[in-house]
Amino acid sequence: MVDIVVMKAVGTDNQAHADAVRRILDKNKVIGLNLVSSPGAGKTTLLERTIKDNPDIKIAVIEGDIFTARDADRIEAAGAPSIQLNTEGACHLTANMIEAVLPKLNLAGLDFVMIENIGNLICPAGFPLGEHRRVTLLSTPEGSDKVQKYPLAFNTADVILITKTDIAGAVGFDMSVVLKDLKGINPKVEPWPLSAVSGEGLDRWYGWLRSIRRRTPTK
Amino acid sequence: MVDIVVMKAVGTDNQAHADAVRRILDKNKVIGLNLVSSPGAGKTTLLERTIKDNPDIKIAVIEGDIFTARDADRIEAAGAPSIQLNTEGACHLTANMIEAVLPKLNLAGLDFVMIENIGNLICPAGFPLGEHRRVTLLSTPEGSDKVQKYPLAFNTADVILITKTDIAGAVGFDMSVVLKDLKGINPKVEPWPLSAVSGEGLDRWYGWLRSIRRRTPTK
Repeated sequence: MVDIVVMKAVGTDNQAHADAVRRILDKNKVIGLNLVSSPGAGKTTLLERTIKDNPDIKIAVIEGDIFTARDADRIEAAGAPSIQLNTEGACHLTANMIEAVLPKLNLAGLDFVMIENIGNLICPAGFPLGEHRRVTLLSTPEGSDKVQKYPLAFNTADVILITKTDIAGAVGFDMSVVLKDLKGINPKVEPWPLSAVSGEGLDRWYGWLRSIRRRTPTK
Repeated sequence: MVDIVVMKAVGTDNQAHADAVRRILDKNKVIGLNLVSSPGAGKTTLLERTIKDNPDIKIAVIEGDIFTARDADRIEAAGAPSIQLNTEGACHLTANMIEAVLPKLNLAGLDFVMIENIGNLICPAGFPLGEHRRVTLLSTPEGSDKVQKYPLAFNTADVILITKTDIAGAVGFDMSVVLKDLKGINPKVEPWPLSAVSGEGLDRWYGWLRSIRRRTPTK
């Protein structure tokens, strides 16, 4: 059974809670990732495949949703521990929520805590959760113009994944527009094309995860 | 040149401004629609086709975006007057913004003011804009589980359009899940499948627009 926690944002300083989250993660040599995207861009699917394909990478997932525990159920079925956070209306996670649920995870045995934020390309961008890296996903059917229209989600990203590249042709996605817009918004980050269906780009993503983890892999 | 207006939400009662918008629209026999969806679900594309395919339906568009005037430029290119509202970060439009820009439109010559809300399946649901009908779009690549995950956007909708049905098979979209979830969330509204690419469902959408307009069509 997935653990479902209903939480509200607190009025105090989000950054103080984010700092506390970071300290807990660092103490346990765990890397925190904050995954941000529109609804349906493929965050849960990418996490499912990452967990299934990489038994040597120890991952736990904090699933943020307004309602339902569907995503946490999917993560547990894929083989990783998961906690479902329900915000009951709030459009983004806040760091106090992460701080509150971290003790529920066995951090000593983990490489990563992956936080799947609420499906929203606007609100999550302004609220750091104590993560070490922010990963923003843009799926090809959303359209090539979204970097310029939602700049905060992209200029705060450490990694940008262009997902669902298997249907890029069918939906008329133009990567050159994304590359052009990113030059003005986040020139240091080159977007990685990726498809959990065709497998394109997964090796690069997995390789990056291995390159940033902190503990010696165990069998 | 598209008119770009930068606006902030005001702290006073949104409903009072929504009521004022409704009164102005009613006085001019204009129907207001509020289009709500995730980023990239196809709102602008549907408006473009609707304008081009129906010269007898007189439409003006208020385009809501955080930044950029890309969508308003597309609407003007399609042949309809458009005003671009930029919220500079806010995740939804508010009724005071609509009230402020309505005088810029020649309402006497219009059947519809179509308001394209910010691309967000959460925040816009709680803010009526004075519209007569709310139209929520869900695109097939977002996934079949989104009605249950974002219930407010769907239980406040008068019309639900399932867009991009031309790629439904490629993305594994399952309409039966949507139908099942809607029974619990908005049982009165049957979703209409639609594709601006294949043309599926457009006649039904156009027919509905003609059925609700208030003024006698002019040549």
